[in-house]
Amino acid sequence: MEPVSDRNPGRLLQAAELSLMDGERVLLHGAVARIRRLGWGAFVVLRRHDGLLQCVLGAEGNEALLDALACEQSVRVSGVLKKASIKDASIHPRDVELQLDGVEIVSSPAAQSPVDLTKKILELHIDHNLDLRPLSLRHPVERARLKIAEAFGRGFRDHLSANGFTEIHTPKICSAGAEGGANIFKVDYFGRVAFLAQSPQFYKQMGVGIYERVFEMGPVFRAEPHQTSRHVNEYTSLDFEMGFIESFRDVMAMEIGVLRHALGRVREDCAPELAMLGAAMPELGDTIPSVTLEEAHGITRGLMGKDCTGEPDLDPEEEKVLCAWSTRELGSEFLFVTHYPTVKRPFYTMDDPANPGTTLSFDLLFRGLEVTTGGQRIHDWGMQVEKMRAFGLDPADFEGYLQAHLYGLPPHGGLAIGLERMAARILGVDNIRLTTMFPRDAKRLTP
Amino acid sequence: MEPVSDRNPGRLLQAAELSLMDGERVLLHGAVARIRRLGWGAFVVLRRHDGLLQCVLGAEGNEALLDALACEQSVRVSGVLKKASIKDASIHPRDVELQLDGVEIVSSPAAQSPVDLTKKILELHIDHNLDLRPLSLRHPVERARLKIAEAFGRGFRDHLSANGFTEIHTPKICSAGAEGGANIFKVDYFGRVAFLAQSPQFYKQMGVGIYERVFEMGPVFRAEPHQTSRHVNEYTSLDFEMGFIESFRDVMAMEIGVLRHALGRVREDCAPELAMLGAAMPELGDTIPSVTLEEAHGITRGLMGKDCTGEPDLDPEEEKVLCAWSTRELGSEFLFVTHYPTVKRPFYTMDDPANPGTTLSFDLLFRGLEVTTGGQRIHDWGMQVEKMRAFGLDPADFEGYLQAHLYGLPPHGGLAIGLERMAARILGVDNIRLTTMFPRDAKRLTP
Repeated sequence: MEPVSDRNPGRLLQAAELSLMDGERVLLHGAVARIRRLGWGAFVVLRRHDGLLQCVLGAEGNEALLDALACEQSVRVSGVLKKASIKDASIHPRDVELQLDGVEIVSSPAAQSPVDLTKKILELHIDHNLDLRPLSLRHPVERARLKIAEAFGRGFRDHLSANGFTEIHTPKICSAGAEGGANIFKVDYFGRVAFLAQSPQFYKQMGVGIYERVFEMGPVFRAEPHQTSRHVNEYTSLDFEMGFIESFRDVMAMEIGVLRHALGRVREDCAPELAMLGAAMPELGDTIPSVTLEEAHGITRGLMGKDCTGEPDLDPEEEKVLCAWSTRELGSEFLFVTHYPTVKRPFYTMDDPANPGTTLSFDLLFRGLEVTTGGQRIHDWGMQVEKMRAFGLDPADFEGYLQAHLYGLPPHGGLAIGLERMAARILGVDNIRLTTMFPRDAKRLTP
Repeated sequence: MEPVSDRNPGRLLQAAELSLMDGERVLLHGAVARIRRLGWGAFVVLRRHDGLLQCVLGAEGNEALLDALACEQSVRVSGVLKKASIKDASIHPRDVELQLDGVEIVSSPAAQSPVDLTKKILELHIDHNLDLRPLSLRHPVERARLKIAEAFGRGFRDHLSANGFTEIHTPKICSAGAEGGANIFKVDYFGRVAFLAQSPQFYKQMGVGIYERVFEMGPVFRAEPHQTSRHVNEYTSLDFEMGFIESFRDVMAMEIGVLRHALGRVREDCAPELAMLGAAMPELGDTIPSVTLEEAHGITRGLMGKDCTGEPDLDPEEEKVLCAWSTRELGSEFLFVTHYPTVKRPFYTMDDPANPGTTLSFDLLFRGLEVTTGGQRIHDWGMQVEKMRAFGLDPADFEGYLQAHLYGLPPHGGLAIGLERMAARILGVDNIRLTTMFPRDAKRLTP
């Protein structure tokens, strides 16, 4: 009988399939992640596309091979899968192991890893981890983190596609910034100055006039000069924008649907990763509690050493205190904060006619951090032009954008979720750099 | 009975669902795309998220409303769906129309469209079309084109996800270019010079060391100063890279699988758009014919007025002639051309040991144009360092990238498909700008 193989270009055998193949002969490939020599031979752990597979190699007749085997070699192997009961949570699958009867070394590294990738946790200073990113991401814990982000992003897309949203790809080289402020990168564009998109905001709104509901998953760029654990200068933004809303709360309701679906994807697609990472997935019901910024300041005043009443935003300590409060008092790790002041939100934000000086806007807090910013946008051309002027902007600089309003837009709103930040919060990882494949900050441009 | 509604934030009713709802009462919304006044009242065509819906409004009692209605207004409507047989291919659904009994004007444009969006074809010079992009994309033909690209991209992703590939997000701000040449944009990065990624090549290869198979769908940037109908300066690149290949032909085989799936998605998800656009989808079997560059020159020599033998690449006329030849003689609109010379391919390309001076590389031609570039990459550190030096590059400038090779990589290869170019070829659209939402070229940075 032909052994089952994952020879290219065919579909690779998945870990979950191997689990069910006790007694079957297989041809597989992978990178040598660990070798443990024992008297009778060795355990050889292969890093495969979706998990680590434990293999067993007897010493008899394999002495030369055992001496030749080294970590980070690429190998093709053959053998028979056999039931096992493996405790190590970094292994997947854990209910079978492969009894090797053939090993072919396909390629070998030119140098030995300067760090021990076989340890349960990669004990590296974060700077060192990031300097060695092509290597450090081979560690099971490190690579599992990015799988969480991948599954969340897939869920975001799938839910929106199923709800009438069109995926768009908008330019990252732009003639003006959408979010204002100085944190914008300049590009030399054929002798002219252009800018890197801080968000796809303008284009999403134009997209509402075309497809009513649009989303994008792509890079955005923020020239933040300061270094914090929760900022990088380039990140993946999950954006959507939807027309015909009756209130900015429609956008919040859509976000709840997105989150439920995306978190469900993570739970379903990443069970082994979550188990290894010891991550506690948040509970999310049909609703998320919501407080106004003013109420939020009132809540933190009683719980913190300082009074932030009247401040136009939450400070990082308040975000932490509010999340702890929401979890404790309301049973929700997610908390919407609404009605940020006009001065604190970009010029495209709709003001609240019922509360002058505040906007129909929201942030979503989750485990101590803001993970979403959203709100209702101005759809009326006259109102938008007037607000631009009030913000000291010249509408002539936004001619293309204003076409959308000029020629008609429905009431609409939308939001942006930072993918790497969301993944970090799901995993309880302190530094967003650890859920970013190759982070960029003011000091880091490589690898 | 409650009428069926697509009030937010719920799921929008799809055109295909409306088709099956003859006799049902619905509450819907949309933008007024066309109004045709007749003696008995008017046809009002609504632009909805996934198609144009024909509505019928009787004059009796609606005189004021009919006078108030105007194109590009956003409206909420109510009425009963009724069987119809509509010939106009821009309408979708065509087997029902909505008998209106209520219309609420939600918002109105501030100015009338300067172009007639109600015509079957948008008769606009391309520059004018692009200047007015937020408006011109509201035309059914224009917006349908981008839906083709969307479906193709979704198929690309889904097929690779199902085949063990991990989706990655790699930095677009980089310290070095991957593709060489002068066509690279410079960014002011906190006082340092950085570059915009010409491709995710380096990161895909690092990704092979981490996940074995990776893909990315994202923007790439090429500072081409010349204006042609087949180039823009920012486009969406569909990239994948796969480890453990035995030959670069494994990459080509994977591409065939991707194309079959993605074209299938287009056919299935965009049937109304394809019908309206009159697009002829290509046939694609289990294989695509393949010729070497040398053979390709030999073929064109007999069919063209000039002899390109020995040229390191195909010229645009040759690409057209070869595709016509392949279609006529081999029955395939797709044609692989392999073994481009070493001098013409980037430094990471694997040379062909059997044909010195040539590489294990390929392009895919489709309907007269190259739509994919791919090949096997160098995985051995020593070989890569040597080739960099032969190319006049300093390996020290690529330290991060070379970590992947230094610490071990399997034999691997990959490719990139230009999304907008592929969509243009599927639709037979001459200028790639028409399948790009907001194109960027040397003269165009807005809207």
